[in-house]
Amino acid sequence: MIQIAVMGHGVVGSGVTEILLKHADKIAEKVNEEVCIKKVLDLREFPDSPIADRFTKDFNDIISDDEISIVVEVMGGLKPAYDFVKQCLENGKSVVTSNKELVAAKGAELLKIAEEKNVNFLFEASVGGAIPIIRPLHQCLAANDIEKINGILNGTTNFILNKMINDNMSFEDALDLAQDKGYAERDPSADIEGHDACRKICILASLVYGTHVYPDSVHTEGITKVTLTDVEYAQAWGGAVKLIASARKNGDKQEIIVAPMFVSNDCQLSNVDGVYNELLVRGDSSGSIGFYGRGAGKLPTASAVVADVMDCVLHKDKRRSIMWKDGNGENVIPYENYVNAMYVLVNAEDTSAAFAKANEIFGECEKIAMNGAADNELAFVTPELAYSDFSAKYEKLAQVADVKSAIRIAKI
Amino acid sequence: MIQIAVMGHGVVGSGVTEILLKHADKIAEKVNEEVCIKKVLDLREFPDSPIADRFTKDFNDIISDDEISIVVEVMGGLKPAYDFVKQCLENGKSVVTSNKELVAAKGAELLKIAEEKNVNFLFEASVGGAIPIIRPLHQCLAANDIEKINGILNGTTNFILNKMINDNMSFEDALDLAQDKGYAERDPSADIEGHDACRKICILASLVYGTHVYPDSVHTEGITKVTLTDVEYAQAWGGAVKLIASARKNGDKQEIIVAPMFVSNDCQLSNVDGVYNELLVRGDSSGSIGFYGRGAGKLPTASAVVADVMDCVLHKDKRRSIMWKDGNGENVIPYENYVNAMYVLVNAEDTSAAFAKANEIFGECEKIAMNGAADNELAFVTPELAYSDFSAKYEKLAQVADVKSAIRIAKI
Repeated sequence: MIQIAVMGHGVVGSGVTEILLKHADKIAEKVNEEVCIKKVLDLREFPDSPIADRFTKDFNDIISDDEISIVVEVMGGLKPAYDFVKQCLENGKSVVTSNKELVAAKGAELLKIAEEKNVNFLFEASVGGAIPIIRPLHQCLAANDIEKINGILNGTTNFILNKMINDNMSFEDALDLAQDKGYAERDPSADIEGHDACRKICILASLVYGTHVYPDSVHTEGITKVTLTDVEYAQAWGGAVKLIASARKNGDKQEIIVAPMFVSNDCQLSNVDGVYNELLVRGDSSGSIGFYGRGAGKLPTASAVVADVMDCVLHKDKRRSIMWKDGNGENVIPYENYVNAMYVLVNAEDTSAAFAKANEIFGECEKIAMNGAADNELAFVTPELAYSDFSAKYEKLAQVADVKSAIRIAKI
Repeated sequence: MIQIAVMGHGVVGSGVTEILLKHADKIAEKVNEEVCIKKVLDLREFPDSPIADRFTKDFNDIISDDEISIVVEVMGGLKPAYDFVKQCLENGKSVVTSNKELVAAKGAELLKIAEEKNVNFLFEASVGGAIPIIRPLHQCLAANDIEKINGILNGTTNFILNKMINDNMSFEDALDLAQDKGYAERDPSADIEGHDACRKICILASLVYGTHVYPDSVHTEGITKVTLTDVEYAQAWGGAVKLIASARKNGDKQEIIVAPMFVSNDCQLSNVDGVYNELLVRGDSSGSIGFYGRGAGKLPTASAVVADVMDCVLHKDKRRSIMWKDGNGENVIPYENYVNAMYVLVNAEDTSAAFAKANEIFGECEKIAMNGAADNELAFVTPELAYSDFSAKYEKLAQVADVKSAIRIAKI
C-alpha cells in the first residue's frame, strides 16, 4: 500500500480526494498497489468529509511520517507551499503539484532537489488542467526539435474575449459575468493581466528548451486595454483577438511573450471556445500538434493530479526524467526584437491623409475595411517589423494623429 | 550504448534512421545513453545510405545478436512482421512498432509475451502518427473513466471528403487526386473502406477498456457510397460528412463502429482539414480533451517511433505498464443496437407525400431544406432509433419511395 498526503482541501484538493476515493479499485489495479490518503492538510474543518478523521492542521504530521511517500500540493501560492514542498522533497517524498506559480518560480530548484533525493516532482496539472501537455511534450515529442509553442492557456481571459466577440459585451461587463460564473477570482488581476498565462508558458518553455524561464524575463500584456472596437476590427480583418502565450526558438535562444494578438481565422486557436484551452506545438519532425480541453476546474485538474500520483507509484524506484537547469533570463531574447506585423487604430478627421502618413512611416500598410465603422476611424496592419522599430514609428505617428490601439498579429 | 535494429527501410523506416542520425546527440543527452543503429533489415539495396554497411537481408542477423536490445518494426502488414516481432519479444528484445495492422490483430498476444519476458512492446506511432495519443490515454487520463472516444483517424478519407465538400469534387476525382499526391495507396481499399480507421479504433478501445477488440468485431463502413448530394445536404443541415471511428462505454460493454457520419458544425471534428487527424476523448473527470495533428507521413510517424525507442531505453529495467487482456468480441455490443438519428435521402415525384410517409414510418422527422435542390429530392433526419429498427423502417419506406442514401448523425 502507498500512503499519500494531500496539502490543501480547496477546489482542486477536494477533487483529488474525491477521485482517489471514487476510483480506488481501478487505480489500485492500474498501479498494482492500493493508494491510500493518510493525511489531508488544511487549516479549515471538514467534519462531513468521509475522511474527516485524517485531516490535520499541522504540516509536521506529514513531514515526520515516514510511511507517507507521496505528497500532493494543491494549496496554491508560494507561501507556505514552497517551504512545504521543499521539505517534502528533501525528506525523500515525491511531490505532485498543480501549482503553476510554484513551478514557474521555483521549478529548477525543486527539480534539482528531487533529482538529488531520487524522488519525483511532477506537475502535469499546472498547465492546461486535464489536458495532457507536460508529459506529451517531454516524452512523445522527445525526438523533435520544438520550433514553437503557441497557446491559449488562460480560460478566464478567453471567456471574456469570446463574450466581447460573440455578444458585443464590453470588457468590464464580460469580466463581471466571468466573476458571477466563478471563472474569475474576486481579484482577477492574475488572469486579466496575463500573469497566469505567463507562468504557464514559462513552465512549458523551461521544459522544452531545458533552461528555467522566470516570469519576470517574459514580456506580459493582459487584455484590459482591448476594446470592443479592436475586437470588431479583428473580425473585419478575418480573425479574432486572443490572449496568446508564445515561445519560439531563435538560434540558441528563445522569444517568449504573452500578449493579446490578432489570430487569423485559418488558425485553430481563433475559434477556441469559452473557458477552453488549446496549445499548438510545432516540432521539426512532427509538424503541428494540437492539444485541447478544459484548462481548469475541480475534477479536470484533479484528474491530472491523480494521474501524476499514479505515475509516482509506478516510478517509485526509478524517477521520471523531467529536468531542466536553472536560468538567468539570458536565453530569453528581449521582446523589443520580436518581429510582428501590427494592427493600429487611429482617430483622424482626414483618415485618407492619416493613412498616407502611416504608409510613409511604416511602409506599405493594409487598411482594414469594416462595415459601420465611424467616419473618423482608421485601422490598418503594418508590414512585419521589430517591436522597437514599431514603437519608434508609432510615436512618430502619434505626433500627427490620435493613435488609439496597437495589437500584434500572431505568427503561429 | 544501446544497440537497436530497424526492420524495414520504407517511408517510415528511412525516417526513423534519419531522425536517429540527425538528433543523435540530443537523444543521447535525454536518455543518458547513445542509441546506435546496428542493423537495418530490408530486402532492397541502399548503397547511398550513410549506414549502408549496416543493412542486412537476413532476420537471423538481428534475432541472434544479443547486443541488440530494441527492435523497431516498420515493415507493415502481418507477414513476416508478426513472426519477427514475436521472435524478438520471445528473445527478450523490446519492440517498437508503427504497424497498426499488427497491433490490431495480435496486440493482446504480443503484450502478453512482452510482459512474460519483462520487455516493452510500444506502438505510439500506430495511431495518429506524430500525435501523442496512446501514452496520454494510458497515463495522463489514467484517473478517468473514459466515456467515449471519437476520431477522424484516417487522413486519406478526410482529404477526399474535404475535396468533395470544399471543391465539389466527385469521390472518384478526389480519390485520383489523393493518389496523385501520394496520400492514397494504389490499392486504396484499406483507407476508403474504413479498415485502417477500424484498426486504429480497435487499438484505442483495447487500451482504454482493457480487452482486445479485433477488427472483425467492429462494424465498418467506408466512404465509397458517399455522394456529392449527401455532402451538400450535410452542409445544408449544418455540418459535414466525416469518417468517424467511435468507441463508447455502455454499461460493462462497448459500442464500437467506423462509418461516415454527419458531424455538426458545433463539433471540432467537423472542421478537421485535409490529411489531419483529430481525436476527442471524454473522461468522467477530465471532460472533453482533443488531440490534433498529422496522422501519417514519414517524419511525423518516425518521430513517434523514435520517442518510443527513447522510452524503451529509459524503461529497460522496469517495463511500461501498457497491457490489455485477450477478447472474443463479447464486449462489443452488436451494431444493430446502436442508437442514432439518421439522415435519409429519397427521390420522389411527390416529395410532400413521401415526407408524410416518412413521418408515419419513423415518427416526426426533420426536413433538410437546401437551395438549388432537385425538385424530386427529399432529405430528412429521423428521430434517434436503434439501427435494427431503422433498417426495418428504411425497407418499409423503400417499398413506397426511391431511397438513395442513409447516413448516421454522429453523437460525439
